[in-house]
Amino acid sequence: MGEFDLIDRFFKRPVTRTALGVGDDCALLAPAPGMQLAVSCDMLVEGRHFLSSVDPVRLGHKALAVNLSDLAACGAKPLAFMLALSMPRVDETWLDGFSRGMFALADAHACDLVGGDTTQGPLTISITVFGEVPAGQALLRSGAQAGDDIYVSGTLGQARLALEVFRGKLSVPAEVFDVARCRMEQPTPRVALGQALRGIATAAIDVSDGLLGDLGHVLRQSRVGATIDTAVANELLGLDGLSPGQRLEFVLAGGDDYELVFTATPSARDAVQAAAQRAGTAVTRIGRIESHPGLRLVDAGGKQLDQRYASFDHFA
Amino acid sequence: MGEFDLIDRFFKRPVTRTALGVGDDCALLAPAPGMQLAVSCDMLVEGRHFLSSVDPVRLGHKALAVNLSDLAACGAKPLAFMLALSMPRVDETWLDGFSRGMFALADAHACDLVGGDTTQGPLTISITVFGEVPAGQALLRSGAQAGDDIYVSGTLGQARLALEVFRGKLSVPAEVFDVARCRMEQPTPRVALGQALRGIATAAIDVSDGLLGDLGHVLRQSRVGATIDTAVANELLGLDGLSPGQRLEFVLAGGDDYELVFTATPSARDAVQAAAQRAGTAVTRIGRIESHPGLRLVDAGGKQLDQRYASFDHFA
Repeated sequence: MGEFDLIDRFFKRPVTRTALGVGDDCALLAPAPGMQLAVSCDMLVEGRHFLSSVDPVRLGHKALAVNLSDLAACGAKPLAFMLALSMPRVDETWLDGFSRGMFALADAHACDLVGGDTTQGPLTISITVFGEVPAGQALLRSGAQAGDDIYVSGTLGQARLALEVFRGKLSVPAEVFDVARCRMEQPTPRVALGQALRGIATAAIDVSDGLLGDLGHVLRQSRVGATIDTAVANELLGLDGLSPGQRLEFVLAGGDDYELVFTATPSARDAVQAAAQRAGTAVTRIGRIESHPGLRLVDAGGKQLDQRYASFDHFA
Repeated sequence: MGEFDLIDRFFKRPVTRTALGVGDDCALLAPAPGMQLAVSCDMLVEGRHFLSSVDPVRLGHKALAVNLSDLAACGAKPLAFMLALSMPRVDETWLDGFSRGMFALADAHACDLVGGDTTQGPLTISITVFGEVPAGQALLRSGAQAGDDIYVSGTLGQARLALEVFRGKLSVPAEVFDVARCRMEQPTPRVALGQALRGIATAAIDVSDGLLGDLGHVLRQSRVGATIDTAVANELLGLDGLSPGQRLEFVLAGGDDYELVFTATPSARDAVQAAAQRAGTAVTRIGRIESHPGLRLVDAGGKQLDQRYASFDHFA
């Protein structure tokens, strides 16, 4: 099967909300009047972001999910995406699974595949995603202010737990692993929550490299500091079978979570919970923004902890 | 150097025509009223699209150039781009050269780098480019009609000539090789020509896989056929030192040219030449669109040739 047959068979579908999709030199997008286009791009490399043994259906889901998660963090509504795919050879079974997993998630978010590129090479998936957000209403990393509450959606640390089991460094009951593996391989981008938080959250980011590392970007760009309540954070894993130290490490620095961490003023607490309920995603208040720079961890009694956690860095 | 230092040092620059650039979960683009956003994506893999020995300055240029070429083929004006980069390690000398080459071309076209992703892995460059085109005026592959002239910009086949020399399959004088190598490593996207052809060309595509293969996309999507005058095409290489058969093969099926092939009605001949002059790019009329499907080659006397040329296919 050649390159163009492959595109026709696995990746060409009619577009529903785009002026022009797959099959010309460019796709054409026309955001509605008053809307800005939010654009983000994530690249997944075999052996680095996923194991070669991963089910291609789940990989198709994840490759798009991590991009939709960036739109969620901006409060944008998904619109379309481009797929650049490098593969060692044409494996029809793999392509069938990958495209099914990807399109199932795309359809759930009414997001058109509008173009891309396929080539021979090491298995690498690069997706660029487009969303719409009313001009001036995007959630940015730079809006947090001293006194704001800090929230996180869903649970944290499960993807890391699954990774450690895969690496043979951890052993947990099968039912714990099954839940964690699903979180690692098929994360749920918090798209509805991101949109529901427009006008409520003061800053937001998605957790891909670990809570502390990603919150750190918000703090630097907002020129503020924060204190995190580790007693509350400790409950965010939602799974048993770990020592307290491991548990906290996975929650604070696990990575690959694709939850939202966001800030809002204390006066917006009811609005935050109402938005979370509308979006069907639980959110937990885990700390507070302060004017003093840096990130501090405290225990249940308010005592400052001195543990340090490394955030995931692709070149560290 | 970590991932974020790397981005700050080599890839973060103020944006000039974009609402929000590098450094948040998403970039924000706001096309002007009445404009559509043209979007395209090309992925370059080491060993497949470029040799590992290539000068990183030239590679930075080429990675963006092949994407700008897609905008040119749509008649769109460049606006911004996203860069996803996978690298085996942080090589500061390489990054310095690559980013300089890329930004030199970006600056020449007033095109902002607005975001992307960097990760560890095999050297792979995936760029998604954004351009603006007045709604409904994009040049498409589907607009060619029987009776239209077929044109090609610049010269063809030089990149292929250089590649064959690199492969050790061909030997040419040094001055011929130098010119050809420059065309292979630093192609010139025909951005001004593409915009000048809006309202004049009936269809357009850029030549990346070879003239006949790419023209074939226009023919299929326009549901027409064509005849190409090989005596005219033969002159398009613009370099000596080859047998007539090789020469024609490189012109018709060389690949990696990044010229535009486009169609226009015979009544638009003066307008086409005026557009070419405004853009500073020569164009040559090489054939005619016909209602009978298929692609025919004729010699200077009008006699049909029966040679077949394979277009470049990444999985053939």
